[in-house]
Amino acid sequence: MEAYLDNSATTKCSRRAIELMVQLFAEDYGNPSSLHTMGSKAEAYIKEAGKKIAKTLKVSEKEIVFTSGGTEANNLAILGSVGANKRAGTHVITSAVEHASVQQPAEQLQKLGYKVTYLPVDAEGVILLEALEDALDEETVLVSLMQANNEIGTIEPIKEAAERIRRLAPKALIHVDAIQSYGKMIIRPKELDIDLLSVSGHKIHGPKGSGFLYIKDKTKINPLLFGGGQQKGLRSGTENVPAIAGLGEAAAEIYENLEEKAGHMYELREYFIREVTKIPGVTVNGRSGTGSAPHIVSVSVEGVRSEVLLHSLEERGIYISAGSACSSNHKKSVSRTLLAIGLKQNLLESTVRFSFCDKTTKEEIAYALECMNEIIPFRRKFTRK
Amino acid sequence: MEAYLDNSATTKCSRRAIELMVQLFAEDYGNPSSLHTMGSKAEAYIKEAGKKIAKTLKVSEKEIVFTSGGTEANNLAILGSVGANKRAGTHVITSAVEHASVQQPAEQLQKLGYKVTYLPVDAEGVILLEALEDALDEETVLVSLMQANNEIGTIEPIKEAAERIRRLAPKALIHVDAIQSYGKMIIRPKELDIDLLSVSGHKIHGPKGSGFLYIKDKTKINPLLFGGGQQKGLRSGTENVPAIAGLGEAAAEIYENLEEKAGHMYELREYFIREVTKIPGVTVNGRSGTGSAPHIVSVSVEGVRSEVLLHSLEERGIYISAGSACSSNHKKSVSRTLLAIGLKQNLLESTVRFSFCDKTTKEEIAYALECMNEIIPFRRKFTRK
Repeated sequence: MEAYLDNSATTKCSRRAIELMVQLFAEDYGNPSSLHTMGSKAEAYIKEAGKKIAKTLKVSEKEIVFTSGGTEANNLAILGSVGANKRAGTHVITSAVEHASVQQPAEQLQKLGYKVTYLPVDAEGVILLEALEDALDEETVLVSLMQANNEIGTIEPIKEAAERIRRLAPKALIHVDAIQSYGKMIIRPKELDIDLLSVSGHKIHGPKGSGFLYIKDKTKINPLLFGGGQQKGLRSGTENVPAIAGLGEAAAEIYENLEEKAGHMYELREYFIREVTKIPGVTVNGRSGTGSAPHIVSVSVEGVRSEVLLHSLEERGIYISAGSACSSNHKKSVSRTLLAIGLKQNLLESTVRFSFCDKTTKEEIAYALECMNEIIPFRRKFTRK
Repeated sequence: MEAYLDNSATTKCSRRAIELMVQLFAEDYGNPSSLHTMGSKAEAYIKEAGKKIAKTLKVSEKEIVFTSGGTEANNLAILGSVGANKRAGTHVITSAVEHASVQQPAEQLQKLGYKVTYLPVDAEGVILLEALEDALDEETVLVSLMQANNEIGTIEPIKEAAERIRRLAPKALIHVDAIQSYGKMIIRPKELDIDLLSVSGHKIHGPKGSGFLYIKDKTKINPLLFGGGQQKGLRSGTENVPAIAGLGEAAAEIYENLEEKAGHMYELREYFIREVTKIPGVTVNGRSGTGSAPHIVSVSVEGVRSEVLLHSLEERGIYISAGSACSSNHKKSVSRTLLAIGLKQNLLESTVRFSFCDKTTKEEIAYALECMNEIIPFRRKFTRK
């Protein structure tokens, strides 16, 4: 049996998205900037994708800018908004548990002389709203927070944070990294009262190399890439029409019966957590129920190093992540998220992430549990020798 | 009959590239940063693509950084190299006929206080080497020149320019925008003695959203996108494995029997130029023979506006470009290239571009000529009324 339980790292591309993309690679391959019908046809695909996505968020299609992925969307949101609003201030607030594609641009800003505050979180990974209140000041130009944590699944109180930001720092822009939450829950940027929202295509069964940034109407933002002026001047470069169309299709598809899909994943999550924590020395990080995204389970296994567990599961056809996922094979640093929640020292390198999709089955989870029950005692015995 | 003669705008994706990409979308869809076999398999595809591309240029695969396309490659080359070599100087040299994705980053540098020299060209679009010699100074940190002009096809004397740059400004880096030349001619960065070379995938029957920057070993360059540290820290973001693999396949494919393919296109070009210039008031811009890229023909038609000609041809199933292509529907400004070669005022808005690929047939060209012979006198008569 095989079980791909690494859907927070990347997902299998949807059949509907692939079919559409093949059509665009081989038939409707025009450059959307061309003046002839091949061009306008390509442009229509982009428009259609924008409409599909806008519908899932209840925003206007004009508020969607397509990027090459989540990292570019986060970079554009952070570097582009701060750059365009220099007069608004020199203070940026984010959290201690952000993805590298938020944390690293924030570090760049620090090098440029900006003050950056990293909000602490509680033991479940929830940002401390009091710390946010304390940090907000007249110089705050941007607050960037993730909606669902990519390592432990915790959902952040975005609406509550936004209310405080509007009240205490009215000039600040609010950016939400929704890369792990989009396609897993209903998101309404207007209700959340935020300005910018990043999404990645390949986390929702869309193609790699696709993503978008929601930019609230009239929000000032500078481009990072300069050239032909595509995407309203905010993202130059011939639009990746197949990927954009594929992303639109995947977005529409994932939001069909979303609540049912999320419900299914929540059931799997609860079942998995209930059973896996029966193994002695196994604990789960983050929050339970709807306080977490439905698809992520962070599991700490006392006495077994995460890489050992990962490879033992892999031998049995089960694919998971050691700690976070993105670029984890390049940097062997300890997870900032796990540090921030105050995970015990001995568990920092003994934590793995299981992540589901709506097609994950109870059989796969049962199989994963069976393997965990088998591997963990064996590996501990082996380590003690 | 149909004839897609807009291959400099974008090309049809190759069947081999599509098949490989579908495999990667649907089966081998792992995240190359994942530690399990799904991840290492994905990473192997990237490596394989790097090898294929490196072979076409006779460089090391380690010198290839994948980007989301040509625009990003040009931006990374220009903004990234200047940013990483601040101490080397404050003067950037480029030409008056560059693509927007070079010219616009240069303008950004100007805003940051850099001096930018735009080298003039002769009537055929060749940069004036004496002007380059005059411009080179101790402050020159970067010289960015295109290899084949995207509007008129002219091939620039890169090797001759590089020789002068090394002699007169030894600290300067040399960047070549090879977006229109790669896949049309043999390119050897080491023989040309250059540091950076940009390529776009969708101009060579690869997928949109793919491209790469050749960066000579030990060349210092700053990233533009920050995050997980993929691509040796030079381009964060989950690698677009399908597009990278598709680009590698397309690159390998286009360089199979390249000389034969280029020869075929040169024949078509000469035939087309010979016949089209028989129409009164029709002239061709740029250079003849191997002084031009084999696939681009810039045609000025006295008394017929380019958009009128474009749409008349389109009605007959022939797809071409009005002036340049990229983003031409967003900015209706006059072509800088046509201005730079000193094209007569009355022809500036009466110039169109035909661009071939190796699969373009003589029948298609004959059909285009037949239509031109029919449309031009008719449109002129119509305009005079």
